[in-house]
Amino acid sequence: MEPKMTLAELRDFFARDFPQVGPEFGIDAVGPMEAVVRWSPSDAHLRPGGTVSGPTLFALADLGVYAALLAMIGPKALAVTTNASIDFMRKPLPGQDILAEVRLLKLGRALAVGDVLMRSDGSDATVARASMTYSIPPKG
Amino acid sequence: MEPKMTLAELRDFFARDFPQVGPEFGIDAVGPMEAVVRWSPSDAHLRPGGTVSGPTLFALADLGVYAALLAMIGPKALAVTTNASIDFMRKPLPGQDILAEVRLLKLGRALAVGDVLMRSDGSDATVARASMTYSIPPKG
Amino acid sequence: MEPKMTLAELRDFFARDFPQVGPEFGIDAVGPMEAVVRWSPSDAHLRPGGTVSGPTLFALADLGVYAALLAMIGPKALAVTTNASIDFMRKPLPGQDILAEVRLLKLGRALAVGDVLMRSDGSDATVARASMTYSIPPKG
Amino acid sequence: MEPKMTLAELRDFFARDFPQVGPEFGIDAVGPMEAVVRWSPSDAHLRPGGTVSGPTLFALADLGVYAALLAMIGPKALAVTTNASIDFMRKPLPGQDILAEVRLLKLGRALAVGDVLMRSDGSDATVARASMTYSIPPKG
Repeated sequence: MEPKMTLAELRDFFARDFPQVGPEFGIDAVGPMEAVVRWSPSDAHLRPGGTVSGPTLFALADLGVYAALLAMIGPKALAVTTNASIDFMRKPLPGQDILAEVRLLKLGRALAVGDVLMRSDGSDATVARASMTYSIPPKG
Repeated sequence: MEPKMTLAELRDFFARDFPQVGPEFGIDAVGPMEAVVRWSPSDAHLRPGGTVSGPTLFALADLGVYAALLAMIGPKALAVTTNASIDFMRKPLPGQDILAEVRLLKLGRALAVGDVLMRSDGSDATVARASMTYSIPPKG
Repeated sequence: MEPKMTLAELRDFFARDFPQVGPEFGIDAVGPMEAVVRWSPSDAHLRPGGTVSGPTLFALADLGVYAALLAMIGPKALAVTTNASIDFMRKPLPGQDILAEVRLLKLGRALAVGDVLMRSDGSDATVARASMTYSIPPKG
Repeated sequence: MEPKMTLAELRDFFARDFPQVGPEFGIDAVGPMEAVVRWSPSDAHLRPGGTVSGPTLFALADLGVYAALLAMIGPKALAVTTNASIDFMRKPLPGQDILAEVRLLKLGRALAVGDVLMRSDGSDATVARASMTYSIPPKG
C-alpha cells in the first residue's frame, strides 16, 4: 500500500498543525508503512551530563509513528496515542542528531502499532527502542 | 523505611539540579516509597485540541518516580530510566493541573520500579498510567 | 456502575468456556471495575529454582483483567488482548498461591485497560505488576 | 561478538535444563546477538476460536530472548526477566508454527534487552511484537 501523502505534504502538515514542535524535529523520509525522523538536540532538551532526555526520545518516537501513520491514512484523522513502551539503552553521542527509524507493524481500522529504533547519527548502536499504539477514530 | 530527604530538600534538589524543568513541575508530598507530584500545564505543552501532550505526561511520570526514588536513596545517586510503559486513557480536564501519585513497588540494589496514576486536579478519572524502571548505578 | 455478572456466573463462564485453564485458576471476588483472582502453582508451572514462571504470571494477569472486564460487559463479548506490559519484581514465596488484584482503569466502547498487582498469599510484597489493554469488538 | 554456544549446545541446554518446555519449542538458528525460535502449537495452547494464546506467545518471546542471551554469555548465568511489553496484532494462521525472530539490542553487564517479531510460518504479517529485559546477576 502506497502512502497517501508525499514527504513534502507531510512536512507542510507538521509545520502548520504542530507549530509547537519546533525546528529540532525533521522528517527525513517516508515510504509504505515506514518513515525516518530526526531530532537535532538543543540545550533545552539536555539532562545533566549531556544525555538527551527520556521525554525528548519519547516525543521523537511518538511524532515518528504519527508521521508514518498520517502518511498512510491522510492528514484529516485525529489519531491519539493510547499506549507506549520504551527501552532506554545507551547514551546518545554528544552533539549528534538522533535518527528514528519507524515501521508500522499494524494498520487496522481502529488501531495502528508502530515500532521505532533510535540511534545517534553516525552510529549503529541502538539508543532507545519504542513501540506506540495509536487509536484511529471512526470516520464521522 | 523512612525517606532520607524531606520535601523541602527534594524541592531544593530539583530547583538546583534540574533548572530546565521549570515552574510547571511541583512536588506536593513525599513519604515512604511514595510521592505526589504535579504539572501545571502551560500553552507550550498543549497539543491541538487542548490535550496535555503525551511527552509531558511521560515527563511528569518520569520526574515523579525519580523524586520518590531520590527521597529514599538520597541525592547523590545518578539513576537513569531504563524502561517505561504508559497507557493514555482520557483527555485531562482543560486548564487543570495534572496530579501524579507515585508508588515505588520495588527498591532493589540495582533496579527500582515505580507505578504512577495521573488525573486532573478535581477529578477521580485516571488520565494516564505509567510504570518506570530506574537503574541504580553501583556505589563508586 | 455495577457488574453485570455475579461471582458465581463468572466462575461458571470460565469453567465452561475456558476448560483449558484448569483448576489452578480461581476467582476470589468481583466488584465494580475490579476483581481478585488466584493461581495455585503446580509443578508444571515452576521454573528451575522454584519460581513461578513469567508466562504463568502473565496468564494470571491476562485472565484477571478478562474476568473483571467480562463481569462489567457481560459474557457475550469476544474481547482480545492487544497490549500488555509486565514488571517482574520478586520471587514469589515457595508453595504459596499468587493473588492478583485487578482494577479496570478504563472501560471505553472500544478499549479497556486494567492494572494488576500480584503478590504471594500471606505477603504484602509485590511479585509482579501488569497492565493489559483489551480491544472490545463492536456489537454485531 | 561471536556466540559462546553453538546451536547444538543451546538445544542440549534447553532439553536438559528446561524439560517442562516440551517438544513444541524449537531453536532454528543462533548468531551474533540474534536467534530464531519456533513454536508448534498443540491443542493445549489454543484459545476458543483457534488463536494461539497470549501466554504462549509471551512464553515464546521470553524463551527466544533467553536463548539469544545464553548463546552470547554462556550457559552458566541465571538471568531473569525483569520487564516485558508485548503487542498482539493479528491472529496467527491456523495450524502453522509461529516463528520468532529475536535481536539483542543491548547486552550490558547488568541488563540485556531483546526485541522479538513473531509471525506464522509461511506469512510475512506480524502476529505479535515483544521486548524483554533480562537482569544478569553479577558473577559469584
